Amino acid sequence: MKAKVLEVIRKFNLIEPKDNIVVGVSGGPDSMALLYILLEISREIEFNIFIAHLNHGVRGKEALEDEKFVENLAKNLNLPFYSKRVNMDEYARKKGMSSEEAGRTLRYGFFREILKQIGGGKIAVAHNKNDQAETLLMRFFRGTGIDGLKGMEYKNGDIIRPILGIDRVEIEKYLKDRNIEARLDKTNLEPVYNRNRIRLELIPYIEKHFNPNIVDTLWRASDLFTVDSNFLEKHSDVAYKRVVKKRGNESIVLDGRLFVKEDISMQLRIIRNCIYEVNGSLQGFTNRHILDVLNLFLEGKTGKEIHLLYNIIAKTSYDDYIIEKGKGHRLQDFEVELPFDGVTYIDQLDIKVVTKVFSKENVKINVNERFKKYFDYDKIEGNLYIRNKRDGDRFVPYGMLGSKKVKDFFIDEKIPKESRDRIPIITDDNNILWIVGYRTSNIFKITADTKRILMIEIFH
Amino acid sequence: MKAKVLEVIRKFNLIEPKDNIVVGVSGGPDSMALLYILLEISREIEFNIFIAHLNHGVRGKEALEDEKFVENLAKNLNLPFYSKRVNMDEYARKKGMSSEEAGRTLRYGFFREILKQIGGGKIAVAHNKNDQAETLLMRFFRGTGIDGLKGMEYKNGDIIRPILGIDRVEIEKYLKDRNIEARLDKTNLEPVYNRNRIRLELIPYIEKHFNPNIVDTLWRASDLFTVDSNFLEKHSDVAYKRVVKKRGNESIVLDGRLFVKEDISMQLRIIRNCIYEVNGSLQGFTNRHILDVLNLFLEGKTGKEIHLLYNIIAKTSYDDYIIEKGKGHRLQDFEVELPFDGVTYIDQLDIKVVTKVFSKENVKINVNERFKKYFDYDKIEGNLYIRNKRDGDRFVPYGMLGSKKVKDFFIDEKIPKESRDRIPIITDDNNILWIVGYRTSNIFKITADTKRILMIEIFH
Repeated sequence: MKAKVLEVIRKFNLIEPKDNIVVGVSGGPDSMALLYILLEISREIEFNIFIAHLNHGVRGKEALEDEKFVENLAKNLNLPFYSKRVNMDEYARKKGMSSEEAGRTLRYGFFREILKQIGGGKIAVAHNKNDQAETLLMRFFRGTGIDGLKGMEYKNGDIIRPILGIDRVEIEKYLKDRNIEARLDKTNLEPVYNRNRIRLELIPYIEKHFNPNIVDTLWRASDLFTVDSNFLEKHSDVAYKRVVKKRGNESIVLDGRLFVKEDISMQLRIIRNCIYEVNGSLQGFTNRHILDVLNLFLEGKTGKEIHLLYNIIAKTSYDDYIIEKGKGHRLQDFEVELPFDGVTYIDQLDIKVVTKVFSKENVKINVNERFKKYFDYDKIEGNLYIRNKRDGDRFVPYGMLGSKKVKDFFIDEKIPKESRDRIPIITDDNNILWIVGYRTSNIFKITADTKRILMIEIFH
Repeated sequence: MKAKVLEVIRKFNLIEPKDNIVVGVSGGPDSMALLYILLEISREIEFNIFIAHLNHGVRGKEALEDEKFVENLAKNLNLPFYSKRVNMDEYARKKGMSSEEAGRTLRYGFFREILKQIGGGKIAVAHNKNDQAETLLMRFFRGTGIDGLKGMEYKNGDIIRPILGIDRVEIEKYLKDRNIEARLDKTNLEPVYNRNRIRLELIPYIEKHFNPNIVDTLWRASDLFTVDSNFLEKHSDVAYKRVVKKRGNESIVLDGRLFVKEDISMQLRIIRNCIYEVNGSLQGFTNRHILDVLNLFLEGKTGKEIHLLYNIIAKTSYDDYIIEKGKGHRLQDFEVELPFDGVTYIDQLDIKVVTKVFSKENVKINVNERFKKYFDYDKIEGNLYIRNKRDGDRFVPYGMLGSKKVKDFFIDEKIPKESRDRIPIITDDNNILWIVGYRTSNIFKITADTKRILMIEIFH
């Protein structure tokens, strides 16, 4: 194992003499193996090791024992020790992140604080071959494209992963052979988190029935995905530059005449690039969003808009294909303005709203569709919004003349209190048009006098 | 469902008026739905339907009932009916194929016979969205690259898949709504085949724990893989033409100086192309083979060879990088010639043999490695081979002077009879060098007089 790790360290230039290496040590088997192997290697390449331990504040007494364990270890090994206590779950709640994401953010934040104190260096983390396989499987199930199957890298900025190519069996053997004691994180043994479930249930199942070497197989496959993904990226960077017309901070304008000439593979990547630049991240955006934008662009119809997540809007204006940060507001729990013709993603509810205006003779109305409704367009006052309920909301249910409290309506419909927040309500500046999935308003109903019709459809 | 299928038929031009469409009908739900939907659609686009049923000869009485069922159906619908009985398992054995592969070959062969009789047309098969997801998962577990994740196409040569975009839930609803009876293939309910296991166990598991829409997710993902894969293919066709120097039937010579300038993504594809052209297929070749060839080429060392599967050899000669069909023989159970310096894949045992000759001072011998052994190179007579046991085999076990029957050796080592066939034996023209994993021969042992050493290593 030492020879393998040393080879990787040299090949990818992970550590150089005199480097400061902050090693993240949870006390678990992976990070203990990482620490000891780096200690061995530091006898060949002279570098400095700093031990860092973050207490995530989730496993109470046990976590305190882990902290103590790593602190003692550092003392015995005579290595500098840094620790910090945080509240991961609270942080996740505040930032609207998953626990896994919050943990990652807090950990790397802490590691970088240490780097600052010690005058720079690198962060060594204990990702291994099994972690890689687990990540690939999770991403595949989520529908990632090739770029998501690249897997982790031995070196990424200031982060190094010296044992990335080592599998868990080797790690355990290494610890056993040297009688190195490691702490056991009991939550790792419960298949409550996705990653644990992949590790404890799914990978053994695949090994038994489909491929006994699945971990190795995915490792090699991710090499191929990386190679192809890098090639595509290289080409799409060139294509992007070719097609971009104006590149502002909050808006990117593409030259539509050039855009349509690109291969669809490049078109999709150009769109992703634009969103990444305008939004600062692609987090939350899925293939569905990108494909919707592509269809809008290829349709090339001026005036139609797609409201993506985080207030990012895609639209066309003659030969300008535009992706920009919208000026629309998003209040309180949530309220999002809808275009009268277009597509809007509501991140809070993970739904998509499609709107369109027709003249009456062009619509065949099907009254039985629960999530597709029709309204008298000319009765609408001001703008169109989608939001969740507010205190004091009232509306005029279809077929009635008087108004009713939305709260009472929910009670009559036996909608549990905890679900009411998640029921979308469509309004204009003054009235509720539709309590989605339940009832439309009488105010906007189609009559003999109706001239233009607004169609609204919700996709879950 | 009809509208969806009709849209696809029109969009991809699957069926035109007056077409002859041979519909493969097993009698199961998928093919029954396909047949009835095509019947509905044939009222809008006028085309001819022919029913084809292949009895695979595996499920005895039940299969005969299926045959009868489809025959009656054709009679009632007043449609031409073609059937044939084959023995799939026997065919698979003879051709060394999996049952699934054999079934596919026999089915399409039968369908094409019918096409010939009726003067051409297309074959409609009942692949659906779930089949697609199952295939993608199986391939991912096997370590396919992006090209293997493209998924099936609505149209591929003379094969059309009108219900590829429909999922199994919709198909079942369609049948139920119309009271269409379908036959149940009981083997489909047992998770004995990989595909059944994916369908019955794995997809429900993923739906429950990871992604309730996994079938749709993989469908959309495969669209993206297709788009990127096509882009890569287009570029690699151009790169291939750029690099090829000589293109014979049994040998392709690449210009090494141009090859090394290509992106690694293209290099891997060029190698795959060469193997495909020389061998007629890539079946059996994995990423490991391709990467080994790449390493050989990038190393560029004249005289080293890689013996891939099916007698395909990769080698370099100065600036010529060559992939060719070897002249080597493969006898009886199996006997494969080994190069003295190179890599050889043994398809029969799924192992890889690495050989190399050193002068004595350049080797550090580790006697404890079970699958890596050293021999006195100058004692070897003639060529080197790997094979399995033959009646009458004898060898001189290490440390002994007299010879011993290999059969007796196996008995002493308590190797079960049924395993003995799969133990590789390395020989030269006259003697056994090594019973792999068990004992080397005394004849070739390293002594004080040894000058050159042959190293042989086996990878499982």
